[in-house]
Amino acid sequence: MSISMSSASLPVMQKMLGNLKHILGKGLAHAQARKFDPQVLTSYRLAPDMLPFTRQVLIACDAAKLGVARIGGLEAPKFEDKETTFDELLERIDRTVAWLASVPPAALDGTEDKAVTFPVGRDGATRTMTAEDYLKTWVLPNMYFHITTAYAILRHNGVDVGKADYLNGGA
Amino acid sequence: MSISMSSASLPVMQKMLGNLKHILGKGLAHAQARKFDPQVLTSYRLAPDMLPFTRQVLIACDAAKLGVARIGGLEAPKFEDKETTFDELLERIDRTVAWLASVPPAALDGTEDKAVTFPVGRDGATRTMTAEDYLKTWVLPNMYFHITTAYAILRHNGVDVGKADYLNGGA
Repeated sequence: MSISMSSASLPVMQKMLGNLKHILGKGLAHAQARKFDPQVLTSYRLAPDMLPFTRQVLIACDAAKLGVARIGGLEAPKFEDKETTFDELLERIDRTVAWLASVPPAALDGTEDKAVTFPVGRDGATRTMTAEDYLKTWVLPNMYFHITTAYAILRHNGVDVGKADYLNGGA
Repeated sequence: MSISMSSASLPVMQKMLGNLKHILGKGLAHAQARKFDPQVLTSYRLAPDMLPFTRQVLIACDAAKLGVARIGGLEAPKFEDKETTFDELLERIDRTVAWLASVPPAALDGTEDKAVTFPVGRDGATRTMTAEDYLKTWVLPNMYFHITTAYAILRHNGVDVGKADYLNGGA
């Protein structure tokens, strides 16, 4: 009856990454319809010292992948982080979702109180939380942050996306 | 041991709205330091047909408040939606967090399979989901969307906020 660690993570991540994929499809279609180089969008930043669109998508994927891997004590597939085009980003999402779909729920269920140590920032610092807190106050907020930022970059550039795309576009 | 409906919602919402409050404080301080009208920020939009900063903050609060009220069958306090200044927005967040803190966990726990019907879009349409799905795939993604969009508006306008502010700034 109550919420399990697997149900609080795997289906939510798969759904949201599916919505992100749908949003990327709209971005690519917009560039093609207007006949401009789609990499204008994939390289776009909302501020000069903010990560570009490509990195927002990669980190959204990695927030899900690495979060689940750390909670479950699993080996996550390594990706090269070389994506620059929409097609490559779409493939990155597909590979992430496929891996999430392969994770047995039993690897996550019952881990609520397990200590998880994870890197914070770029200076080698770490934090330790229970797996439940890590999922609820770090992994998921992080994934939502980067999906929404990717959305905002496209929205700012005139792509016809709305909140329905973000919440349910991949359904 | 497993995650309860109350623990998946109330503390997460209070933490994230606390982080949002911290981010707003940085926005206000930035405007004051640069000596420009803070309402340039509170009225800012990332696209001409996108909601301004004020509405992002109001909807983030309401996503949490209305989500919890619908799940728990509770009466949520009504706010007038007239906020235009940082101070008013900060007060809106405070009032929302205070209400969330007053909700007894027992009002939410055990509601996982309860049917929740909620409005979708602006034409009077509704959807019905289990309370668990509603929380995980609607209420929380919606709250994160508007908090991140508020953050992105400030970040785009040069406010010195980073992901640590978003994840943990209110701690």
